[in-house]
Amino acid sequence: MCAEITKEDLGKKVTLSGWVQRRRDLGGVIFIHLRDRSGIMQLVANSELNKEVFETAENIRNEYVLKVSGEVVLRDEENFNPNIETGELELKLDTMEVLDSANTPPIYIDESDNANEATRLEYRFLDLRKDKIKNNLITRAKTCSVVRNFLDSEGFLEIETPFLGKPTPEGARDFLVPSRIRKGKFFGLPQSPQLFKQILMVSGMDRYYQIVKCFRDEDLRQDRQPEFTQIDLEMSFVDVDDVIDVNERLVKKVFKEIIDYDIEAPIMRMEFSEAMDRFGSDKPDTRFGMELFDLSDLLKDCKFNVFAGPIKNGGSVRAINAKGLADFFSRRDIDALVDYVKTYGAKGLAWIAVNEDGSIKSQITKFLSEEETKGILDRAKAENGDIVFIVADKNKVVYDSLGNLRLHIAKKAEIKMDEGFNFLWVTNFPMFEYDENEKRYKAMHHPFTAPMDEDLDKLESEPGEVRAKAYDLVVNGVEMGGGSIRIHSGEVQQKVFNVLGFSDEEAENKFGFLLKALKYGTPPHGGLAFGLDRMIMLLVDTENIRDVIAFPKTQNHTCLMSDAPSIVSEEQLEELGIEVVDEEE
Amino acid sequence: MCAEITKEDLGKKVTLSGWVQRRRDLGGVIFIHLRDRSGIMQLVANSELNKEVFETAENIRNEYVLKVSGEVVLRDEENFNPNIETGELELKLDTMEVLDSANTPPIYIDESDNANEATRLEYRFLDLRKDKIKNNLITRAKTCSVVRNFLDSEGFLEIETPFLGKPTPEGARDFLVPSRIRKGKFFGLPQSPQLFKQILMVSGMDRYYQIVKCFRDEDLRQDRQPEFTQIDLEMSFVDVDDVIDVNERLVKKVFKEIIDYDIEAPIMRMEFSEAMDRFGSDKPDTRFGMELFDLSDLLKDCKFNVFAGPIKNGGSVRAINAKGLADFFSRRDIDALVDYVKTYGAKGLAWIAVNEDGSIKSQITKFLSEEETKGILDRAKAENGDIVFIVADKNKVVYDSLGNLRLHIAKKAEIKMDEGFNFLWVTNFPMFEYDENEKRYKAMHHPFTAPMDEDLDKLESEPGEVRAKAYDLVVNGVEMGGGSIRIHSGEVQQKVFNVLGFSDEEAENKFGFLLKALKYGTPPHGGLAFGLDRMIMLLVDTENIRDVIAFPKTQNHTCLMSDAPSIVSEEQLEELGIEVVDEEE
Repeated sequence: MCAEITKEDLGKKVTLSGWVQRRRDLGGVIFIHLRDRSGIMQLVANSELNKEVFETAENIRNEYVLKVSGEVVLRDEENFNPNIETGELELKLDTMEVLDSANTPPIYIDESDNANEATRLEYRFLDLRKDKIKNNLITRAKTCSVVRNFLDSEGFLEIETPFLGKPTPEGARDFLVPSRIRKGKFFGLPQSPQLFKQILMVSGMDRYYQIVKCFRDEDLRQDRQPEFTQIDLEMSFVDVDDVIDVNERLVKKVFKEIIDYDIEAPIMRMEFSEAMDRFGSDKPDTRFGMELFDLSDLLKDCKFNVFAGPIKNGGSVRAINAKGLADFFSRRDIDALVDYVKTYGAKGLAWIAVNEDGSIKSQITKFLSEEETKGILDRAKAENGDIVFIVADKNKVVYDSLGNLRLHIAKKAEIKMDEGFNFLWVTNFPMFEYDENEKRYKAMHHPFTAPMDEDLDKLESEPGEVRAKAYDLVVNGVEMGGGSIRIHSGEVQQKVFNVLGFSDEEAENKFGFLLKALKYGTPPHGGLAFGLDRMIMLLVDTENIRDVIAFPKTQNHTCLMSDAPSIVSEEQLEELGIEVVDEEE
Repeated sequence: MCAEITKEDLGKKVTLSGWVQRRRDLGGVIFIHLRDRSGIMQLVANSELNKEVFETAENIRNEYVLKVSGEVVLRDEENFNPNIETGELELKLDTMEVLDSANTPPIYIDESDNANEATRLEYRFLDLRKDKIKNNLITRAKTCSVVRNFLDSEGFLEIETPFLGKPTPEGARDFLVPSRIRKGKFFGLPQSPQLFKQILMVSGMDRYYQIVKCFRDEDLRQDRQPEFTQIDLEMSFVDVDDVIDVNERLVKKVFKEIIDYDIEAPIMRMEFSEAMDRFGSDKPDTRFGMELFDLSDLLKDCKFNVFAGPIKNGGSVRAINAKGLADFFSRRDIDALVDYVKTYGAKGLAWIAVNEDGSIKSQITKFLSEEETKGILDRAKAENGDIVFIVADKNKVVYDSLGNLRLHIAKKAEIKMDEGFNFLWVTNFPMFEYDENEKRYKAMHHPFTAPMDEDLDKLESEPGEVRAKAYDLVVNGVEMGGGSIRIHSGEVQQKVFNVLGFSDEEAENKFGFLLKALKYGTPPHGGLAFGLDRMIMLLVDTENIRDVIAFPKTQNHTCLMSDAPSIVSEEQLEELGIEVVDEEE
């Protein structure tokens, strides 16, 4: 292939096939950059040396497909091109065959192309010719290969689970597939192989994995696609440390082999509660400070009810110190920050700036005692030039607001971050979240997540305090994977259903076949799933999930290249026993 | 694991986890067969040596999950069990922990189980505990690993193509997925990644593969599932021999590494026309003879219009000689054979038996001249005891009837076949089949299959004579894979559409995005897809596709374990803008 030719091949006759990246006619000599998957090779057609080839070369255009042969020669030194691998070589052409011509492409096949994304997605087959996305896909393929070889060597069996599954009533929205043979019934495309992989453990398969498409019919955010890929695995006869160990070795191997990056092992672990207290997030970006701190003890008796009120109602007052940024934010900027935290449910955002001269600027200090203000600034370790942002509310709102504000400010102010990747296991998640609307506990992961042994006795008395054997792998503030040990005891499972308020009938309806399986001898088991798309995004350093998927969809679930979804015939719908009753405009 | 323990471990203390396969209480001593994925280990609990363990052992039942530790010791010689790998060893127990109890399983976890398939599918998690299906899945995983490693080493890139695709108007019936965001529109689950893999070649990916689920909403036959798995690949800058070469090396590697079977390479090739003439099938089972032979030249002028008529109308009279089977078939058996060929469209089945004494028995010889009868028997090389079966009809009916009759008789009479695997490439398929109903040509593979270079000039004048660069890999009469070189020239593509009678608009509607892609520089390309399920069926020697799939569906598209498909809520349908108008009883 083009880029596989080296100086060792000088003087050799070679045959290459590829696309015309560029053609320069210098009058009597035509230089062509021929591109294949590997890279570029320069071809030379000289009218004096080979008239026939030269005449062919005169008529080719960009993106024509050629098959050429010739001799590998050294370029003149002034023509060396350090930007391409074969930059010191060129091919003196003997033959040139045009395998296919090409219309003028509507986008420029080069990294400098600035066509809008819609055009690029419509002409995805051309966009994929560019180095960046092509190399992303190569990285993706290599990563899958490394993952599979590692898991094979660790005794994991790759086992396929069904795509035409049972619709699940919990969790995100399913994509449904009407059954023609059993009219009126529907398959659900899997949101994950969760139940099936647990069934495989019940079946004695011991260790399972699969790199598998999963489906969620959600409204799309920047980093979501309706179909996405998981590295999904499950192990029997294990506890938390066993699952963490094998996955730590897996990611270490991937990052080393794919981008030659050494992950420090063992990877740091942080309890969920610490992650929330310090970073206001269960996926903290630990590459920089600006950590949250709690002011509740200082302010619980203060006269300013905006602070004291939430504390009395079980909430808290917490803050972050944006070091040295007192002057960075104008009043208008700060108003924007107030609006920003409101999107996370906060009623407001208090702030205290310490001017460079040590004086204090704030709209709230008038409501506080001097001691209280000093206490806040002491705890913030505030120095001249700092600005402290404070939120008082229910804990969830405080964490969400400040956790996100921290990231927002870091981005705005281009705060310096650690280089490389900060890996972190977040562990010991709560088993349950209390749903204020439904006035009941809900499972934070799913109802099969095992409680921590030491919290088992609180399952009935203080369910809100029970922690789960659940763990997420977080990298630079991105959740790359997560999982848990599952319940394998019928007794514990029943208690968890009681906390969730499920009747036997409900449990049976929702999870019938797994519950049935659990009755026939279940090994302790647990597992994890990585988001492959996110893993590749980290490896190739992009924030656009569409850069790592060959044929992605837009935010409204459309493939601009193939024009899916599309209208189908009445006959097809009739065969399925369904009718369209509501159509998009 | 259980079966990993060898005599080298004698005297060692080991810990094992698994399921109770069997428990024998000999009074004071309890023997337990502990089973894990690897196999069986015998445990011994002796009341005198360890009272606590013995008491635990007294209360366990089949399929309980245990964690045990103890010392590896040699069994008494009279207790050696040659049927299990660890048959000379046992574990003298120090500890035994019951990790989970188990209800009495509704099926027997042993190869001797004879529960009906419906019960086994309902309790699939128990059925999977049996050696046979478990080992099939292990073989399947190993096969995928061998395939991937081979294709990786050959420069193929694993690239994922979408599951939520555009419904395709040609071919088998699509499964449809209603879009919620674009109400009234539908995705189609892919019948194969055909168009996308061609697009990837247009994109310059050079070599692609994927082990991928495909979907066809057909009524199920014995060896079909609504979702099945393909090893799908495509290559650029290749012709037929290149594709055949790499795939030949692939299957050779798979059969060697998985079952230590040497495939003779190069694999024999046979033109489609020869396969039909000799075996009446494009997937001939070449492990035995009983080949078809043509009698048309002998009988074209005979007075028996049942023979002469079809020949005059462009059909033929062909026959097979069931050697030595004249006495094997009773008159009733022969009547059943007549009924059998009628299912393939034949109007009847003529026969001539040569008795052991050389006399002839037949109902048709009275309509033939002596010369004609002798001619038939000569051509059949008929000897005493043989019976010749004759079909006269349109060629398609003659081939179908005799091709299938040949297999049917071979099975009934248990004809001796070659041992092992007869691999065969069937090549040079016709481009087009004439559809008598629609009075037009249809593509035999798909409209992007390339014609053979030497037949190009017949594309417009004699389309029925044009052969395609298409090839199937047939093993013991089973089509294990197939593919073709694709058209990469717009001009040829247009001619093919003309033959098929597509208007520009139709072509655009049916294949729009591929046609568009083909305009921007397309490399010559081709590929192949293997049926993974069928490959595994051959490797593990089963005729039941459900034996090689972890969670298969029944003939009416139902998963008996999870009870998919199922009814969904009105709210879900409303969100999708559809309504059920026809329900199963």
